[in-house]
Amino acid sequence: MPDWLTDLPLVDHHCHGVNGTTVDRATFEDLITESDRAAPPGTTFFDTQLGFAIRRHCAPILDLPVFADPDDYLARRAELGPAEVNARLLRASGISDYLVETGHKSDEILTPQQMGDTAAAGYGEVVRLERIAEQVAGEGDPADFVVAFADRLDSHLSAAAGVKSIAAYRCGFDIDPSRPSPDEVADAVQQWRRSTPNGTPLRLSDPVLVRHGWWAAIERAVPIQLHVGYGDPDVDLHRCNPLLLTDLLRLARGSGASFMLLHCYPFHREAGYLAHVFEHVYCDVGLAVTYTGAQSAQVIAESLELTPFGKALFSSDAFGAAELFHLGALLFRRGLARALDTWAGADWPPHEQQRIATMIATGNARRVYRLDQMATTTFGTGP
Amino acid sequence: MPDWLTDLPLVDHHCHGVNGTTVDRATFEDLITESDRAAPPGTTFFDTQLGFAIRRHCAPILDLPVFADPDDYLARRAELGPAEVNARLLRASGISDYLVETGHKSDEILTPQQMGDTAAAGYGEVVRLERIAEQVAGEGDPADFVVAFADRLDSHLSAAAGVKSIAAYRCGFDIDPSRPSPDEVADAVQQWRRSTPNGTPLRLSDPVLVRHGWWAAIERAVPIQLHVGYGDPDVDLHRCNPLLLTDLLRLARGSGASFMLLHCYPFHREAGYLAHVFEHVYCDVGLAVTYTGAQSAQVIAESLELTPFGKALFSSDAFGAAELFHLGALLFRRGLARALDTWAGADWPPHEQQRIATMIATGNARRVYRLDQMATTTFGTGP
Amino acid sequence: MPDWLTDLPLVDHHCHGVNGTTVDRATFEDLITESDRAAPPGTTFFDTQLGFAIRRHCAPILDLPVFADPDDYLARRAELGPAEVNARLLRASGISDYLVETGHKSDEILTPQQMGDTAAAGYGEVVRLERIAEQVAGEGDPADFVVAFADRLDSHLSAAAGVKSIAAYRCGFDIDPSRPSPDEVADAVQQWRRSTPNGTPLRLSDPVLVRHGWWAAIERAVPIQLHVGYGDPDVDLHRCNPLLLTDLLRLARGSGASFMLLHCYPFHREAGYLAHVFEHVYCDVGLAVTYTGAQSAQVIAESLELTPFGKALFSSDAFGAAELFHLGALLFRRGLARALDTWAGADWPPHEQQRIATMIATGNARRVYRLDQMATTTFGTGP
Repeated sequence: MPDWLTDLPLVDHHCHGVNGTTVDRATFEDLITESDRAAPPGTTFFDTQLGFAIRRHCAPILDLPVFADPDDYLARRAELGPAEVNARLLRASGISDYLVETGHKSDEILTPQQMGDTAAAGYGEVVRLERIAEQVAGEGDPADFVVAFADRLDSHLSAAAGVKSIAAYRCGFDIDPSRPSPDEVADAVQQWRRSTPNGTPLRLSDPVLVRHGWWAAIERAVPIQLHVGYGDPDVDLHRCNPLLLTDLLRLARGSGASFMLLHCYPFHREAGYLAHVFEHVYCDVGLAVTYTGAQSAQVIAESLELTPFGKALFSSDAFGAAELFHLGALLFRRGLARALDTWAGADWPPHEQQRIATMIATGNARRVYRLDQMATTTFGTGP
Repeated sequence: MPDWLTDLPLVDHHCHGVNGTTVDRATFEDLITESDRAAPPGTTFFDTQLGFAIRRHCAPILDLPVFADPDDYLARRAELGPAEVNARLLRASGISDYLVETGHKSDEILTPQQMGDTAAAGYGEVVRLERIAEQVAGEGDPADFVVAFADRLDSHLSAAAGVKSIAAYRCGFDIDPSRPSPDEVADAVQQWRRSTPNGTPLRLSDPVLVRHGWWAAIERAVPIQLHVGYGDPDVDLHRCNPLLLTDLLRLARGSGASFMLLHCYPFHREAGYLAHVFEHVYCDVGLAVTYTGAQSAQVIAESLELTPFGKALFSSDAFGAAELFHLGALLFRRGLARALDTWAGADWPPHEQQRIATMIATGNARRVYRLDQMATTTFGTGP
Repeated sequence: MPDWLTDLPLVDHHCHGVNGTTVDRATFEDLITESDRAAPPGTTFFDTQLGFAIRRHCAPILDLPVFADPDDYLARRAELGPAEVNARLLRASGISDYLVETGHKSDEILTPQQMGDTAAAGYGEVVRLERIAEQVAGEGDPADFVVAFADRLDSHLSAAAGVKSIAAYRCGFDIDPSRPSPDEVADAVQQWRRSTPNGTPLRLSDPVLVRHGWWAAIERAVPIQLHVGYGDPDVDLHRCNPLLLTDLLRLARGSGASFMLLHCYPFHREAGYLAHVFEHVYCDVGLAVTYTGAQSAQVIAESLELTPFGKALFSSDAFGAAELFHLGALLFRRGLARALDTWAGADWPPHEQQRIATMIATGNARRVYRLDQMATTTFGTGP
């Protein structure tokens, strides 16, 4: 890998916070899988591409030999303590800026500002549309929901860089994508509240309200992150093929909003097609890079078949374990190095390789999220 | 790359004509993307696999240094003039014969004969079923459509090598594939004409009439090209997975017609499966090779996993820019060389490699399209 | 390839028997394709990845030069005789144990015991759910079907290692996966018998009875093999994407049953996702490895992106021709060697590579099928 790629700053345009406590082996294994159950007897999530990548690449950051035993790794992790582990792994990642999505278990992880402090990096926030709806829907009259949602969203967007939708987890993409009327929205909120038992938190799954969130964001012409593809077993994976978004993307042309397709595996070629033909679509293979480990170079190369170099981004989609940030960045660099080496032969001039790598690593995110205009972050001050 | 592969003649079994005029940068960028909009601010379609391939491989053909700047490239292109640019790029491609599909914007591009003259190569024509229907439907009584369509098709087929259907763009493949009755066809034509405002050109999208075209071709036992997969944003890509053609392929067994699945990306493995199990199915990865540029070697290798070597073909699907022909051929050679190198190790005898490469490059097309029996072309006289 | 990988024993957890007779070229070509028709004029199934692999790797086992001509190969095959050919190819495969599925044309092939004898290897049986239903349904009163099916299944399972379902071939996976009631089952059997003409063998395709078989197996907490993806043209391939099994997998959590997804191509990444997030899901790329030949290394690498190393298995899915067993094993070793070489660089310790390869080759199958507890086989006595 050339030095310039080792040292290239990265904007992680979609991630969550790290956990600030010491975790036992069971909890750590849960952080390194998308499964919601323990590995079956006789197996461990350390025996995966991700587990091998942790032992290979993270162990030395904690002063352990390469391929340290999992129990030794966790013992050393506990010995150093979470603050030291997190600081070492995050700072060594070379991620210069973190856009932290705060809608998932935010009480268990560091805030965006704490992330910036721990990593000595810039930071910003991305807000989850469905979380805002769940907060607002419980507060007032259903008839006031549209206005209250708009106010809350605008309030968040005064500081946040964009929004995120987890429609993939709640209703899938094979829905009517059109904008619902205010009456439809009010009826859906009323029905939602009625059907939720007292004391149970509101959990949004009604496509009407998912679409309402989308269109509120489209109207505001902001970057809209969409979880696409691979995730935990709550997902009906065949219902979140990004091609099912085609009609939504057509409807939103000319709005000024951008659609940021996240992860996308195993539909990353389909996502690349959308990023190629629709001027307002962008994509990454975050999460998939981390989980496919040593094999991620192929996934990265495939994601750059049709995706214009000005439309591809870097993300880790890391949550909880600092290892996921570290590996997201390291494997991205290695995969991009392998791809460039394969493609370029002796033919692509180094400065052209560096130019497109920089676009993907930082430039595209800075432009689309307008990061240089953000007042509330420290973008640009990272390593 | 071995010399024999560099020099291997190619039958381009599906392409369009080149543009004969000087184009400005915006027009040229439009010719090197499947998008129907300009690249968004801050980006350019030169920053894609295809754009990089043009700067790498086509610039030297125009006497420019490798990786010439896009503006320099277009200035040199204008300086040489379209006739010289087209002749240089086409003749250097090593394509010996062009099967030109004439149903798309044929007034903007060279005719098949002009293509043959410019390229100093053989040529033939493929006619578009939907275009014939659009011409015939406006001319007489709807009740006469079936006969008029048959007459027009037969007239074309007295010279043309086969037919093409763009059902993928008009209604997708998730339709009843059976042959419609003459009454259904007549009703559909009448309804179509009634619903088209006066002065508006007829545009076929009714599945009944698409199917009618398919079955007219099946009855005539000719090669039927089908656009499959990747294309412009008019396509609902998830509705043109070739597996959705399975029932049609079953119904057409024994008819003598052959189905030529074009492009197929990202469903080229699915297409390979169909070519393997159905005796009358063939496939290529044209268009995808050109657009995936330096990464196309992987796509080509994948397309040859299940596809029998006697069922795979070469095409460029180029339209407008001569660069697309040149790169379609060059990247096909390079990708096939890489695949053979990976597969063969020291194990596959050179004459066996050459034998299957020749089948894919020319032999399969010559056999299926019966090119050696065509009276109206100059097949076999190319370089 | 390292010696340890060349010598690694393999449990073939899903295969059929070999043919014990001399076959002519047409019959042999039929055994080396998933098509149900002859190759079209001008082509042969020897000109495929599989055909090339046979000529490259199997010819020397029969004392022929590498890349012997197909006719010479078949002549030598006839000269040696089926017993010698089968013994040579099977014993040279290094497969130590065969789990033979007996539900497909079992009168044309060797029994599990004959397979063990011929190969000098351990063997066991896997029974086909749909075959049991077809046998039982014809025998008594439809109202007694549920009990009779249970008795027959229990009888088989006293010796068999698990069950297999070919739902993919009969109704696809896009069906309601819930357990049918006894009344629904009895009605379905009655309807099935009524609609089958006298003298015609019963052929199960009713989803109600497919689901009944699944749930009988789930209740018994046994390994359930499911044909997924690639197969012959009877399959509607788009209806056997394993993601369509998601709801079934959710319903069967905690049952103790394991789901063994077979073949999976071209949906092997989707299968890997399911094996990652569902604790009771396992997968292989058998059949696809054999048929993609020299290109199978990529398929194997892709199948190990998300699949935990403790969830991946080896199978050949071979039927009829001993070449398919031999190549299934040989190509699996070569593909795994290539993948480990790519992933490991200088980084993965040899003992860790050997540990996970052994899990995939034998350990996972031994654990999930509880092979060491089987009384009726000779597991562990193979080479």
